[in-house]
Amino acid sequence: MSYNYGGQGYGPPGGAPPSYGQPGGFAAGSAAGPPPGADPQLWNWFAAVDSDRSGQVSAYELEKALINGDWTPFDLDTVKMLMSIFDTDRSGTIGFNEFSGLWKYIKDWQNVFRHFDRDRSGTIDGRELSDALKQFGFALSPPLMRLVEMKYDIKATGPTGRGGPPPGITFDRFVRCCVVIKQLSESFQRLDTDRDGWIQLNYEQFLQTVLSLP
Amino acid sequence: MSYNYGGQGYGPPGGAPPSYGQPGGFAAGSAAGPPPGADPQLWNWFAAVDSDRSGQVSAYELEKALINGDWTPFDLDTVKMLMSIFDTDRSGTIGFNEFSGLWKYIKDWQNVFRHFDRDRSGTIDGRELSDALKQFGFALSPPLMRLVEMKYDIKATGPTGRGGPPPGITFDRFVRCCVVIKQLSESFQRLDTDRDGWIQLNYEQFLQTVLSLP
Repeated sequence: MSYNYGGQGYGPPGGAPPSYGQPGGFAAGSAAGPPPGADPQLWNWFAAVDSDRSGQVSAYELEKALINGDWTPFDLDTVKMLMSIFDTDRSGTIGFNEFSGLWKYIKDWQNVFRHFDRDRSGTIDGRELSDALKQFGFALSPPLMRLVEMKYDIKATGPTGRGGPPPGITFDRFVRCCVVIKQLSESFQRLDTDRDGWIQLNYEQFLQTVLSLP
Repeated sequence: MSYNYGGQGYGPPGGAPPSYGQPGGFAAGSAAGPPPGADPQLWNWFAAVDSDRSGQVSAYELEKALINGDWTPFDLDTVKMLMSIFDTDRSGTIGFNEFSGLWKYIKDWQNVFRHFDRDRSGTIDGRELSDALKQFGFALSPPLMRLVEMKYDIKATGPTGRGGPPPGITFDRFVRCCVVIKQLSESFQRLDTDRDGWIQLNYEQFLQTVLSLP
């Protein structure tokens, strides 16, 4: 049997700024001015997201600011994932320095997303997702790929999405999906200490591994 | 070592109707009339949710209709979970008969939620969640409980939720959380064929188990 739980070269390159909320949001400004040497454009984005001018971006402010290509808001689990990656001092909020890392991360993912959204539909379909995961080093079996697609697609079950948005994986869910597959694969590698392709887990470890996923 | 991955007596009893979207939504009606013998009240709810009068409720319509006690919409993963449980004929939509099952399920969970929301805050906190899971037969260790709470709480990281809703687990996420813990525990039991408290998984099984969770 051949399988792959590798995955590297996954951090994507730089690019254009992310889509931000209502144009009205830009009028708001952060209480203090930018720190010396700050990129003025980046400071403007930060100030726009920091709508209560506290000098810190909360998860709530981030959730209000981040939108997908189809104008739907980011789902809460993706916002929480971003906060947990970039709130490095565990203050519960994102300061300007943390924000610049978050900003770059989103920009980079946007480029990845645009690269794999070959048909320019604004969402990622099963084929595009498979290409992306393969390029990241995760060659999943067809049954696993179907499962991943079903889990992250915005459509629910079955073929029809009557009255709703067309099926596909939106930007927020695409990022979360890739991070989950990467984290699962790394967990497996870490647990497979003798490299025989099998891991042994007790209940505590099993739940701990799964519940740590974004 | 003592641990518990049981879980029974988890199906909650009957009760009051769930909260539905805008009052305006009730004006809409389903194309055809109710089937003979249908509960007229339930038919009214169904017709209200079936906003395009197609005679079927789509995931999109369900998402628009379901709201938490704090008026936030249900998260998409919970809506998808409900669709996958109640769209028994895998048509991608919920017919009236499927809807009556869904309705009862939500009503029952609302009673469970109200029962464990001891301080009537409208959300479930860590202590309340621990009580609920214990009563369902899942006595998780304190580190696991912290992880579960962190994952399903609407607050992101850290203690402050500046400008946003207070921390806690909303109704939609509480239901999803309980279903995930139940499903994980059942998966573990199924995989632990020799009942020694350890499971052995290869990469495919590991991902398959995790990606099947709602």
